[in-house]
Amino acid sequence: MNKPYHHGDLRAALVAEALTLVEESNAENISLREVARRVGVSPQAVYRHFPDKAALMAELAQTGLARLAVAQQAASERAGGGSAGFAATGAEYVRFALANPGLFRLIFAHGAAHAGEMCADNPMSMLREASAALAPPGRDPAAFALQAWSIAHGLAMLMLDGQVPVDEALIDRVVDVRALG
Amino acid sequence: MNKPYHHGDLRAALVAEALTLVEESNAENISLREVARRVGVSPQAVYRHFPDKAALMAELAQTGLARLAVAQQAASERAGGGSAGFAATGAEYVRFALANPGLFRLIFAHGAAHAGEMCADNPMSMLREASAALAPPGRDPAAFALQAWSIAHGLAMLMLDGQVPVDEALIDRVVDVRALG
Repeated sequence: MNKPYHHGDLRAALVAEALTLVEESNAENISLREVARRVGVSPQAVYRHFPDKAALMAELAQTGLARLAVAQQAASERAGGGSAGFAATGAEYVRFALANPGLFRLIFAHGAAHAGEMCADNPMSMLREASAALAPPGRDPAAFALQAWSIAHGLAMLMLDGQVPVDEALIDRVVDVRALG
Repeated sequence: MNKPYHHGDLRAALVAEALTLVEESNAENISLREVARRVGVSPQAVYRHFPDKAALMAELAQTGLARLAVAQQAASERAGGGSAGFAATGAEYVRFALANPGLFRLIFAHGAAHAGEMCADNPMSMLREASAALAPPGRDPAAFALQAWSIAHGLAMLMLDGQVPVDEALIDRVVDVRALG
């Protein structure tokens, strides 16, 4: 009863189904077998695209990072770029985490690939570029970049884990590194 | 073959053993039965102190928060208090996470109690007090406090999850909110 798929279509269908599963359950509980069942193909058909679960998780993480990069780029442009745009990318990072908690946790999970090294065009390389342009005079751009990433990542985790209530205005205030004295 | 324990001694022994287990494995995998076995008492003896696993986990989280508060207080005093002391408490937060990863994750895990409300004398109430005293003029102390917490929490998580290499000098630079322009 397997559905017919073109090769590329099946890969895209597997990724889409796995992304849904990551939000329904969590990444640890997902099996290639379950993804196959839900897409309506045999496990063997899945193995041709993803030899093991780690390969599928790595693809999901890359997909997630690419989506985050697109969302951040759009947020920066809406804010007019520059330092306002930079603050907007931090807020977008937190909102992305809240909207896609399973995917966000997967991207940064212990033992996952280094998010900053997965692909050239990702949120961390954008962060490095923006920090090089926007770090205050005399400040190390790399430390400035890590400080900005830590604020957004910390606030995202504290809100995801229910330690800090989700508050849209608070997100904008806390991620804005210009506001820190 | 159960060992004889005075009531309070057994409770302390159970907590100590559970703290060891949290670092060996992780909190999700721990069972009251295993803690009982390792301490050398019956599961029934454990249930008299902790009716369920959630009760034991809550006690571990409180123990962890109390230890973190003591470590941060000491770090602040070593740095001479004030804003240097405040920066030192942030660095201590990250170092505590790296030294006690299982306990740190347990304290802030999804679904755990709000760390900021567990006990009066905890790191979050200390943070609120310090922020009220140290927030720059014109800045909301609550937002300042959350920004400082987010930086420390974010850096701790990124280092724990292997996204950012552990670097002692970097910890001091990144958590110092005075350095942000």
